[in-house]
Amino acid sequence: MKRLLLLSNSTLPGEPFLGWPEPHIKQFLGNKPLRILFLPFAGVTFSFDDYYEKVNERFVAMGYSCSSAHKVDDKKEAIDQCDVIAVGGGNTFQLASYLQDGWIELIREKVQKGAPYIGWSAGSNVACPTIKTTNDMPIVEPKSFNVLNLVPFQINPHFTDATIPNHGGETRSQRIAEFIVANPGVQVYGVPEGALLQVEGDEVTYKGRGELKVFGGEKT
Amino acid sequence: MKRLLLLSNSTLPGEPFLGWPEPHIKQFLGNKPLRILFLPFAGVTFSFDDYYEKVNERFVAMGYSCSSAHKVDDKKEAIDQCDVIAVGGGNTFQLASYLQDGWIELIREKVQKGAPYIGWSAGSNVACPTIKTTNDMPIVEPKSFNVLNLVPFQINPHFTDATIPNHGGETRSQRIAEFIVANPGVQVYGVPEGALLQVEGDEVTYKGRGELKVFGGEKT
Repeated sequence: MKRLLLLSNSTLPGEPFLGWPEPHIKQFLGNKPLRILFLPFAGVTFSFDDYYEKVNERFVAMGYSCSSAHKVDDKKEAIDQCDVIAVGGGNTFQLASYLQDGWIELIREKVQKGAPYIGWSAGSNVACPTIKTTNDMPIVEPKSFNVLNLVPFQINPHFTDATIPNHGGETRSQRIAEFIVANPGVQVYGVPEGALLQVEGDEVTYKGRGELKVFGGEKT
Repeated sequence: MKRLLLLSNSTLPGEPFLGWPEPHIKQFLGNKPLRILFLPFAGVTFSFDDYYEKVNERFVAMGYSCSSAHKVDDKKEAIDQCDVIAVGGGNTFQLASYLQDGWIELIREKVQKGAPYIGWSAGSNVACPTIKTTNDMPIVEPKSFNVLNLVPFQINPHFTDATIPNHGGETRSQRIAEFIVANPGVQVYGVPEGALLQVEGDEVTYKGRGELKVFGGEKT
């Protein structure tokens, strides 16, 4: 059974890194000392080493062990030897580009066999069929917008309908409305910060602060 | 000599459509009744017909005539028969996708021969080498991120460093800093709303409200 924990974001303002998700992650993974393979490829303005150190510290504190995909020579072996896949946030386009370099099929197979998947922000975007509902700047051109396709819907992380006063750019809902026009029939879940979707097989549960906003889903 | 008027946005809050740009457009194009070819392809949640009507009304009021690229059978003939290219805002990814269907080389040649180019928002993004500094959601997958390449720098339109209070998403400057890390040596001009870049050959002039913000440009 497919199991995914798809977090809007890692950290709330003023709180420690992966602070609010910690109880959700522990409830999702349980008490066994699972081996997590972390993919730091969304990190742009800091090194993959630094990203891994930061994440490792948190996962170890929760009782798990953690290795990083950027240090791996043999991707298949790394996937075979882990229990959990965790994909961190940063830039979704850069992350997609790295995933498309041999990771996609391996991760898909592993998750379809039941290995838990944890993603936050960009890591939640890439669990979807495409990266078309990311908020990120397209600083890197990936081979395609198709990614892991682990769930049948799209996620918009960091969802908010707040806007900058006197600024004319589109609201988030306007942007997602554009997506729906261009991609009729696809459902988009706007997940606010401090919230997540937990996927257990075909069942999707919303947890955390605020409210889930659902867009589209009917062919027009 | 290449001549471009690259506007951050079409409309300031509470003002009429193409209100603030009007004196700049008239100064840029002069008093002759020039024939403008308008490209409405960035429009997503409204029809190309509606977009053309809205733009045509404004250009006619300024003393020009205007036809729309979405009604054209023969692209080359349409480009040959116009004096000015105008590319409207909306979604940059959808716009790039349409441009890549046979318009890019025709527009490049025309502008290199001296035909004035006017773009706003997405229309300014596509004048750059790539669409990698757009703010838009990637709702459509273009053939590539390469676009008109009429200027040697990147523009970030609607530039602002204001943020939504208590929201953890990246600031615009953080996003552009990510672009610079991934694309060293490329210069990015953050152009706030109500402002523009006027390009006359190799000379670039900033006009309008606020301040131009320049990022990058040195190989690291």
